[in-house]
Amino acid sequence: MSYLDRIKACNTRDLSHFRPFQVGGVHVGFVRDDMASALKPYAEVFSVDEHAVVLRERLTSFEARTRAVGRVLKDLAKRGFLKGWRDEAYAVTPAFGAPALFVMERAAVPLFGVRAYGVHMNGFVRKAGRYRMWVGRRSRDKPTYPGLLDNTVAGGLPYGMTAFECLGKECEEEAGIPAELSRQAVPVGAITYCAETHEGLRPDVQFCFDLELPETFRPVCHDGEIEDFMLMPIEEVAAIVRDSEQFKFNCNLVIIEFLVRRGLIGPDEPDYVAIVQGLHQ
Amino acid sequence: MSYLDRIKACNTRDLSHFRPFQVGGVHVGFVRDDMASALKPYAEVFSVDEHAVVLRERLTSFEARTRAVGRVLKDLAKRGFLKGWRDEAYAVTPAFGAPALFVMERAAVPLFGVRAYGVHMNGFVRKAGRYRMWVGRRSRDKPTYPGLLDNTVAGGLPYGMTAFECLGKECEEEAGIPAELSRQAVPVGAITYCAETHEGLRPDVQFCFDLELPETFRPVCHDGEIEDFMLMPIEEVAAIVRDSEQFKFNCNLVIIEFLVRRGLIGPDEPDYVAIVQGLHQ
Repeated sequence: MSYLDRIKACNTRDLSHFRPFQVGGVHVGFVRDDMASALKPYAEVFSVDEHAVVLRERLTSFEARTRAVGRVLKDLAKRGFLKGWRDEAYAVTPAFGAPALFVMERAAVPLFGVRAYGVHMNGFVRKAGRYRMWVGRRSRDKPTYPGLLDNTVAGGLPYGMTAFECLGKECEEEAGIPAELSRQAVPVGAITYCAETHEGLRPDVQFCFDLELPETFRPVCHDGEIEDFMLMPIEEVAAIVRDSEQFKFNCNLVIIEFLVRRGLIGPDEPDYVAIVQGLHQ
Repeated sequence: MSYLDRIKACNTRDLSHFRPFQVGGVHVGFVRDDMASALKPYAEVFSVDEHAVVLRERLTSFEARTRAVGRVLKDLAKRGFLKGWRDEAYAVTPAFGAPALFVMERAAVPLFGVRAYGVHMNGFVRKAGRYRMWVGRRSRDKPTYPGLLDNTVAGGLPYGMTAFECLGKECEEEAGIPAELSRQAVPVGAITYCAETHEGLRPDVQFCFDLELPETFRPVCHDGEIEDFMLMPIEEVAAIVRDSEQFKFNCNLVIIEFLVRRGLIGPDEPDYVAIVQGLHQ
């Protein structure tokens, strides 16, 4: 078991059973063969053949695309192809920062292999040059990855919200970190990966943040997503990441990025270059 | 002009006039067509055809390869194909941390498009949350990139030296930073790029280090490589990087990485994801 194994786990997929998903002449995702078949009946919205899934060209506006795809997704949910409806709109864009082509229900994003963005924050305490990190345990009744370890705060970026706004909101809800503290969080980079999951494909970007917390502060979850927070010596967190699969798959990468950036993994590690590159695939 | 332009400048090449360079069945570099032609007369060492340059298979040991290639390189230097002999051995490896297949004179490394490793360190001063960075100006009589701006300390990694040893040595020679200070330098990651230069191809890895310096410390160059050091507000350094080409090409990336990592460029920058990924190509 190694750090590289965790990175590989986030970058394992077989694109041979996926088809490109195109909107307005732009490639924006990948649809797995089974989902492509499920989309065939909606011929007024999607053109599906063996090479690609294409949003019908007559749907040219943000509103028309959003409405048409939304109707299909509701029907797919009824038919059982789409589970865990969140009622959160995610942007479908050709690139980060570009205007959205349309928005889509969050739960459908991996089904279309559309790039999603999120925020992940490591809260830590530093004393005499030694780090301890706040680690969360996901609730046992969470629909996704129940009971696994998690970063201090993490959440998906819905349409129309900036990464900073999203972080402030998640800090408050997930860990009871008030705005005057969360405002001190520092954006430190991003990890990117492309994982095949049971739902489909996740070519994600997670914006990473650090927040140095006062020793007296204790995170408390207000939205029931995290059942417990633990303040752990960073060496212990590093060993869990390296030697086990106790963390939710992508949280491992956010911690590895922290270890690299803070010099807790250095160029004396033989996999160093592969690790650094692997965090940004 | 933008940060992305600096990243693009380090990743511009046309591989169509390069051929793969193979040693012991492993791809270790790229040789430009003109250099491939120059290698043809050395048929006992290199097999050259239109598809590849291959080190002769009868050269199986580290020593035999090093000796045979070394003889060719000395002759190429005499013939004017290899300039700026440094008398420094660089490792040719299939991957970072793997045993060297052989070693080669540093000046020849880009001619063979072999991956080189180096260390780059930003020395900085922090006061009330504001950063100033020590920037060097390269000597006007340096053979490479004379007069351009440079990171506080930078150097190539010779065979048999660790990144930490190399950094300590360069800190001492290039900036008069004593061991008790340079030992506090923190490894913070690496940048990777692949640039075509007038010499050939540079698919480099630069290990990045940060060193917070006391306000009273002034770097002094002992080896004549840097003519002057300036302590500049980080916003000024950032503007030079973004809006000009005053820095040596790869030093720009080391500074951009610093800006990202320390939250001085954040996800409100539209190019953020492209920048973060671009630093690790």
